[in-house]
Amino acid sequence: MQKKVQIGLVGLGTVGGGVYDALRRNGALMASRLGVGLRVRRVAVRNLSKRRVGANPPAAMLTTDWAAVANDPRVDLVVELIGGTTVARQVVLAALRAGKPVVTANKALLAFHGEELFAAARRYRANLYYEASVAGGIPIIKVLREALIGNRVTRLYGILNGTCNYILTRMQAEGAGFAEVLADAQRLGYAEADPSLDVDGHDAAHKAGILASLAHGFWVNPRQIHTEGIRHITALDLKFAAQLGYVIKLLAIVKKDGRGSAQVSVYPALIPKGHVMASVAGVFNAVYVRGDVVGDTLYYGRGAGADATASAVLSDLADAALDLKHHSTERVQAFVSHERNGALRPISAATNSFYLRLDVVDQPGVLARIAAILGRARIGISSVIQPEGHEGASVPLILMIHDAPEAAMARALGQIRKLNTIKGEPMMMRVENFT
Amino acid sequence: MQKKVQIGLVGLGTVGGGVYDALRRNGALMASRLGVGLRVRRVAVRNLSKRRVGANPPAAMLTTDWAAVANDPRVDLVVELIGGTTVARQVVLAALRAGKPVVTANKALLAFHGEELFAAARRYRANLYYEASVAGGIPIIKVLREALIGNRVTRLYGILNGTCNYILTRMQAEGAGFAEVLADAQRLGYAEADPSLDVDGHDAAHKAGILASLAHGFWVNPRQIHTEGIRHITALDLKFAAQLGYVIKLLAIVKKDGRGSAQVSVYPALIPKGHVMASVAGVFNAVYVRGDVVGDTLYYGRGAGADATASAVLSDLADAALDLKHHSTERVQAFVSHERNGALRPISAATNSFYLRLDVVDQPGVLARIAAILGRARIGISSVIQPEGHEGASVPLILMIHDAPEAAMARALGQIRKLNTIKGEPMMMRVENFT
Repeated sequence: MQKKVQIGLVGLGTVGGGVYDALRRNGALMASRLGVGLRVRRVAVRNLSKRRVGANPPAAMLTTDWAAVANDPRVDLVVELIGGTTVARQVVLAALRAGKPVVTANKALLAFHGEELFAAARRYRANLYYEASVAGGIPIIKVLREALIGNRVTRLYGILNGTCNYILTRMQAEGAGFAEVLADAQRLGYAEADPSLDVDGHDAAHKAGILASLAHGFWVNPRQIHTEGIRHITALDLKFAAQLGYVIKLLAIVKKDGRGSAQVSVYPALIPKGHVMASVAGVFNAVYVRGDVVGDTLYYGRGAGADATASAVLSDLADAALDLKHHSTERVQAFVSHERNGALRPISAATNSFYLRLDVVDQPGVLARIAAILGRARIGISSVIQPEGHEGASVPLILMIHDAPEAAMARALGQIRKLNTIKGEPMMMRVENFT
Repeated sequence: MQKKVQIGLVGLGTVGGGVYDALRRNGALMASRLGVGLRVRRVAVRNLSKRRVGANPPAAMLTTDWAAVANDPRVDLVVELIGGTTVARQVVLAALRAGKPVVTANKALLAFHGEELFAAARRYRANLYYEASVAGGIPIIKVLREALIGNRVTRLYGILNGTCNYILTRMQAEGAGFAEVLADAQRLGYAEADPSLDVDGHDAAHKAGILASLAHGFWVNPRQIHTEGIRHITALDLKFAAQLGYVIKLLAIVKKDGRGSAQVSVYPALIPKGHVMASVAGVFNAVYVRGDVVGDTLYYGRGAGADATASAVLSDLADAALDLKHHSTERVQAFVSHERNGALRPISAATNSFYLRLDVVDQPGVLARIAAILGRARIGISSVIQPEGHEGASVPLILMIHDAPEAAMARALGQIRKLNTIKGEPMMMRVENFT
C-alpha cells in the first residue's frame, strides 16, 4: 500500500503557484486526513529564471521539459495547469499513456477535447480528475457525479462566470453602464484586456457543456449551446428589472423533462429578487440543481482565482492519491456515457417568459400596434409599464410576457422592430422563475 | 469484480420507504452510472401486516427480525433507517461485526455513539456511511471530508433545523408570534407534537457536533455545545431586526482560529439581510463553510423529508457499492481522528456583537443608567433605537452592541435586569456578521 504519492506539476502560474503553496501549507494536514502523503516531485515551467513570489520550488525540482515530468518514473500522477488546448492536450495524453492519473483545471481543454481525453483515460486505465475546471471552489463535479448520483437532474442553473456577475452586480448597485464598469473591472484585474470570452458568454458555455454532459450522460459540444452575453444590457434595464422585483444574472441553463431531449443555453435573465440565486453577488459563482429525488439544491463559492481553484485541485489530488493507494483508479470514471439517445433541443423549441424594452415614439396608438402584432402571434402580455420621468423624441416602454414560444416571439419581435414608431434596437431578455 | 451489490434494509418508515421507492425508480440509472447494480435483498420491518402506500416490497423479502437481515450471508451491505439509539446501535454493530459496510441516516446515534461505531468500523474493516445524518439532501459530509480536504475550516455556519427555519420564516413574513406559528407548523406536519428537540436547538446541536468533528478532527460531544432555542423570540424582535437590516436565523456556529481551541454553539442570531444565508427560507437548510484555501462556500437544500434524505442515502449506497466493487472499503474512513489536542472553548470566552431589547419605563434617565452599567463593563453601544408608536407602562428600547466579551455582557445584563426601570425579561440575541 502506497504511503506517499509523488506529484509532477506542469505549470507554475497563478493556479500552479496556488497549488504549490497550498500543498506546502496544508500538505501535512491532508496526509493526516488521508493516510497518504502528497509530495511535489518535479515541476515544469516555461521560464527557469523567472523570479516567483510565494511558490518557489527548489531549482533542482524545476525543468522546462514537460515531457520529462510526465514520463519521470518517480512521478505517480501529473497535474496539468498550463492552460490552453495544444500543449496541455499533449501533456494530458502523454501522462495517461504512461498509465498515470491526471488532474487538470482546464475547462477549454475538456470542452473541446473531452471525449478524446476520457477515451484515453479508459484505454490506459488511468483516470482524469477535473473538479477545478468548472466553478473553481464549488465542488460541482463531485456533487453531480457522486452526491446526486441517485437523481435525474431536471434543472440546472449556473452563475458560472465571475467577471459577468461582478459587472452586473456593480451595474445594479451603482446604476452604472456596461462599458464604464467593464473598464473598471479590467483595471482591477477582474476582466481580461480582451473580455469577449467572458462577457459574450463563451466561458460560461464551456462550463455549461461540461455540467450538462455529467448531468445527462452524453457529451455536449459547447458549440451547440445557444449563447448570449451581457454587452447589450443597460443601466436602464437593471433599473426597470429592480422596479419589477428582479435582478439580472448571466445564467447557464440546462433543462430536461422525462425522456425528452435536453436544452442547454447561456443567456442573461431576469430572476426574482427573493430567490437565493439573486443573492449571489460579485465574483461569486453558484450552481442551482434540481434532482427528481433531492429537490432543489444550491452550491456557492468563488469561481476563479488561485486559491479557490487550488482548493479544487487539492480535492482531486486527494481522490487520485486514495485511488492510487487502493488500486481503485477507475472507481469514479472521468466520464460515463450512459445515455445513448442523448440529444440537444434548440432554443427555438423552448417556451419562456420575456422582458421587452422598446424605445417608442411618445404618441397615441403605439401600444395598440405592438399589442396587435403580439395578439396575432397568440402571445399574451402580462403587464405593460411606461416609466415616468422620461421625455424626448422617444420614451421607454416595458412589456412583460408570460410563457411564449421562442419561435413565435422571435417572429413577433421581427415585426415590432419594423414599426416606424419604434426607435433603436428592441431589448429582449428572458425571465427565469425557476419552475 | 462485483457486478451487483445486495442490500439489507432495516426500517421501512418514511425514509426507508423513500429509499426503496427511489431505488426502484432510479436504480437502473444508478447502475449505468456506477457500473455496478444495487438490489434490495431483504427488508426488516416492525409490522409485517402494515399496508404501505408506495414502498411495497414483495412479502417474501420482509421479516421482523433485523438480525436475520444483518447476518444474511446474501446481504453485502446494511442500511439502518429505524432511528432511535438502542436497536439502531445493535443493528449497526452487528452488521459491522459481520464485516458489512453500513449506511445510516441516524444523527442521534452518531452524536451519542459515534466514537464506538467508528471504532467498530475500523476494527472489522467495514465502513460506516452517514451522509443522510446531517442536513438531508445537502452533501455536507462529502464536502467536508472530500471536497474541502485541502482546507482548514475556520468558520462553519449552519441553518440545520428546518422546523426552526420554517417557524422563523413565517414569523418574519406574517408578523406572527412563536406559539401561533408553532401550532400551525404542528398541524401541517412541519413540527412534532413535542417540539422541544427542534425548537430548543438540540437537533441542531447534534448535527453541529458531527460537522465540527469532521471539520476539526476530534470528536465533539453534543452535550458540550452551548445551545439556545427560539421559543423566546417574539414578532417584535423580528420586526425590529428587519428595521435594522437583519433577519433572525437559528445558527449552528463552529469557529476556530489558528492552533487554538474550537468554539461550537447553537443560538438564534441576527444576520444581515443581504447575506446569502438570509435568503435561506422555510424548511430549507444551508451550511456556509469558510476554508483557508477556498474562501467562502455555501451548500443549500432540503434538510429533511423522505426524498431529500433518500437522495443522501443513495449517494452513500453508491460509494459503498463502489468500495465493495474495488475492495477499497476503507478508502474514506468513517471518521479520522487527526487532532490530538482538540478542545472546545466555552462561549463565555467568546467576543460577539449583540442585540438587546429591553422593556423600559418611559421616563427620563433610564437610558443613562443602562449606559452607565455598560460603560463600567467597558462595553460600547453602537446604536440605540427607541421605536415610535409604543405607549403604555413600558416601552421597548433596542441597543446594538458591537464586539463585547460574552462574560462581561452576561454580568452587565445581570445588573441591567435588576434595575427597577426595566420591566419583564431582557431579550438578548447575538448578531453574526460572518467575519
